[in-house]
Amino acid sequence: MNASEFRRRGKEMVDYIANYIESIEGRQVYPSVEPGYLRPLIPSCAPQEPDTYEDIMDDVEKIIMPGVTHWHSPRFFAYFPTASSYPAMLADMLCGAIGCIGFSWAASPACTELETVMLDWLGKMLRLPPAFLAEEAGAGGGVIQGSASEATLVALLAARSRATRQLQAAQPGLPEAAVLEKLVAYASDQAHCSVERAALIGGVKFRAIPSDGKFAMRASALTGALERDRAAGLVPFFVVATLGTTSCCSFDSISEVGPICDRENLWLHIDAAYAGSAFICPEFRHLLDGVEFADSFNFNPHKWLLVNFDCSAMWVKRRADLTGAFKLDPVYLQHSHQDSGLITDYRHWQLPLGRRFRSLKMWFVFRMYGVTGLQAYIRKHVRLAQEFQSLVNQDPRFEVCAEVTLGLVCFRLKGSNTLNEHLLDRINSAREIHLVPCRLRDKFVLRFAICSRTVESAHVQRAWEHIQGLAAALLEAGQA
Amino acid sequence: MNASEFRRRGKEMVDYIANYIESIEGRQVYPSVEPGYLRPLIPSCAPQEPDTYEDIMDDVEKIIMPGVTHWHSPRFFAYFPTASSYPAMLADMLCGAIGCIGFSWAASPACTELETVMLDWLGKMLRLPPAFLAEEAGAGGGVIQGSASEATLVALLAARSRATRQLQAAQPGLPEAAVLEKLVAYASDQAHCSVERAALIGGVKFRAIPSDGKFAMRASALTGALERDRAAGLVPFFVVATLGTTSCCSFDSISEVGPICDRENLWLHIDAAYAGSAFICPEFRHLLDGVEFADSFNFNPHKWLLVNFDCSAMWVKRRADLTGAFKLDPVYLQHSHQDSGLITDYRHWQLPLGRRFRSLKMWFVFRMYGVTGLQAYIRKHVRLAQEFQSLVNQDPRFEVCAEVTLGLVCFRLKGSNTLNEHLLDRINSAREIHLVPCRLRDKFVLRFAICSRTVESAHVQRAWEHIQGLAAALLEAGQA
Repeated sequence: MNASEFRRRGKEMVDYIANYIESIEGRQVYPSVEPGYLRPLIPSCAPQEPDTYEDIMDDVEKIIMPGVTHWHSPRFFAYFPTASSYPAMLADMLCGAIGCIGFSWAASPACTELETVMLDWLGKMLRLPPAFLAEEAGAGGGVIQGSASEATLVALLAARSRATRQLQAAQPGLPEAAVLEKLVAYASDQAHCSVERAALIGGVKFRAIPSDGKFAMRASALTGALERDRAAGLVPFFVVATLGTTSCCSFDSISEVGPICDRENLWLHIDAAYAGSAFICPEFRHLLDGVEFADSFNFNPHKWLLVNFDCSAMWVKRRADLTGAFKLDPVYLQHSHQDSGLITDYRHWQLPLGRRFRSLKMWFVFRMYGVTGLQAYIRKHVRLAQEFQSLVNQDPRFEVCAEVTLGLVCFRLKGSNTLNEHLLDRINSAREIHLVPCRLRDKFVLRFAICSRTVESAHVQRAWEHIQGLAAALLEAGQA
Repeated sequence: MNASEFRRRGKEMVDYIANYIESIEGRQVYPSVEPGYLRPLIPSCAPQEPDTYEDIMDDVEKIIMPGVTHWHSPRFFAYFPTASSYPAMLADMLCGAIGCIGFSWAASPACTELETVMLDWLGKMLRLPPAFLAEEAGAGGGVIQGSASEATLVALLAARSRATRQLQAAQPGLPEAAVLEKLVAYASDQAHCSVERAALIGGVKFRAIPSDGKFAMRASALTGALERDRAAGLVPFFVVATLGTTSCCSFDSISEVGPICDRENLWLHIDAAYAGSAFICPEFRHLLDGVEFADSFNFNPHKWLLVNFDCSAMWVKRRADLTGAFKLDPVYLQHSHQDSGLITDYRHWQLPLGRRFRSLKMWFVFRMYGVTGLQAYIRKHVRLAQEFQSLVNQDPRFEVCAEVTLGLVCFRLKGSNTLNEHLLDRINSAREIHLVPCRLRDKFVLRFAICSRTVESAHVQRAWEHIQGLAAALLEAGQA
């Protein structure tokens, strides 16, 4: 395919995309296919000679689309939102064309420098403490990771490295394995599974701290666990506080947990993967109070801030904590500026070596929406969640199961877990809307997350009527 | 921005991209900017109200492009190639529009299933042993990782988990820390730094095995290290063999190393990040002989197979080795099909949770080029490297420093390292072409990698004349 054919096909693709998004509501939100559906539909080997572009695009409609879960449909209320906006798509096209791999400053200076400045822009939107910004020529700064899971792992590894250095300084000759054996990481029992997984990868112990009645990690529960572990000769070193848990969007009390971490020399990492985007609105910023105690902070603009996946923003107070944990410097990656202190080689901040020019997406989105546009988008989603909550509250057969702070409503039929499992089953089998469940303590709960950029009040109302109808049929069948 | 504005701006972007690529040779391949150039050129905060699209695109030319290292310029001979093709860009646009997050089968069945089949297609192109394919309904299969570094880390973690289970089965009650203390990973002293880094992350010891005169890891050197470690009470568990090292594209002898790993129950991971693409050509396939001994194999179609970054292909013989190392299953990610044995939840195969629909890029590229088109592309690059090699060989002032097997030529002026450092400095300061160095044993060496999709013989000839000219001036200045 040459440039002139790309001009033609690229423009057709732009129209295909615009058509797809404009008409997405008409597609079945959750596919009807069964596992293994795709393999029989395509050849078992790559073609020797080129296929035609028309054939490929025909197959997109015939083979791919029937198996797609349409995350951007206004009928999609599952998981959490994943971002989709036109400015991000345009920037991503440009990113693909530039196609530089930004592992070091020299590998593409613009790629590194725009990222540093965009993380400062975003940090200021959230009113992060200046210690997290790079512009103050201080020790902190931001980086784009691929996902919150990676950010958590990177933070844990940096914390592990810091704790190891400190323990070995206090006890010279202490072998690393003896250190690892003692280290303990903590998070709420509501934290994302990636925290426990990071501990597993890092070879350290993990404790799930029982959350309180509002599914929040509180000082007393954490302190108790720390005391027990210290008494057993272990060394607490890392705490993850979650702002906006995956199950029910609860908030750990970082203003309680933060001072403990500070006092006890524990690395505090804040995972606000979903909720973080809301902190650009002054009315939600108080949820971030206490961030000044954190060593690292992360949230995903690729969830709720209109920057298409992947774009997970992470800040640290001390860049040296990251680079100290990872830095290895072969000659083929060295360049003349690297020891100047002025530049950033992001390869030392992350797990992979390669990286795309992802900050272009942030730059396009922030500029094309403006802060006010982004705030309006967040507020619309929160308003729609409140609307859904009040619909649930008006129906005495149902209950809301956790405080609705942002765009997620956890709800269920009053009654058994089995009843609610059946309700969810009917909802997802009907394929009018798509939801996923969670478990809150011993309760099976349905999650209604406001997800799509184009979801409106009418969609929420129709979704609720649909749920009510299925619930009525289910309850009736149960009585029969 | 609404759909109709996206239609307009998207088509403009398609033209911008086509223009960029068609005229890339006219741009200075390596930028003249100094560290910190970008920050003063843009505001210190995101705008409150939207900027215009025209302003943003003006800034792309004014602010971004002057700081870009143009990896797709036919004057770029640095690092290794990173893929760029129009079919991959079209597929990536579609991937961005669908915007699904494919962490489980249910999250978007097409995303998971196309990936599994594309990895089979690619595995067959390489003539991988059937044990690595998913279609045989066997235990193996492929996955797209973000980078070779991640693939190496995932393999090491899976190997660590397997070794731990085996040791604990033999010695019930053995604590995990005691296991970690004993485990040792091995790779050649020419292996990529990500191997040592993976060991650092995984908390295990790492040994660099001295390579032979052709920069290859051989049986004798590995066996010696294994024996020494076993004698010291340590437990070898993981070997990375590299096919196509980053420094000089040397090849470890997997037909020697493989049987040792097999006999001694060591996980063998093969990292063919760059070279792997060449194995689709029958004349290079012998370089992969011995892969049947590997537990995992990885290469980067995003380097040399025209599938834009990121797309790192990894295969394992036993899927359960990966899922056993990582699997954690919260309710909000469970779905009704997951225990059927028929489906793949790729989140258990990788470090991040989220993932893009990257297999679309493979599908478009494989179909639009056909296997013959891809082979022709590889062969052209190898031919150009041979051409450069023969130019170097014709000039008695220069020497070729390692065998040229694929698209990389390592060369230097006969003389001191300082002389060659000065030559590289002059080359990169002139900014006509861009190269990076490596160190082979005690020698500072220049790497000339065939990179761009559009590079032709004339570019190679001009690059060589340019290097000769700078070398002549340098040698003359030295004599003056």
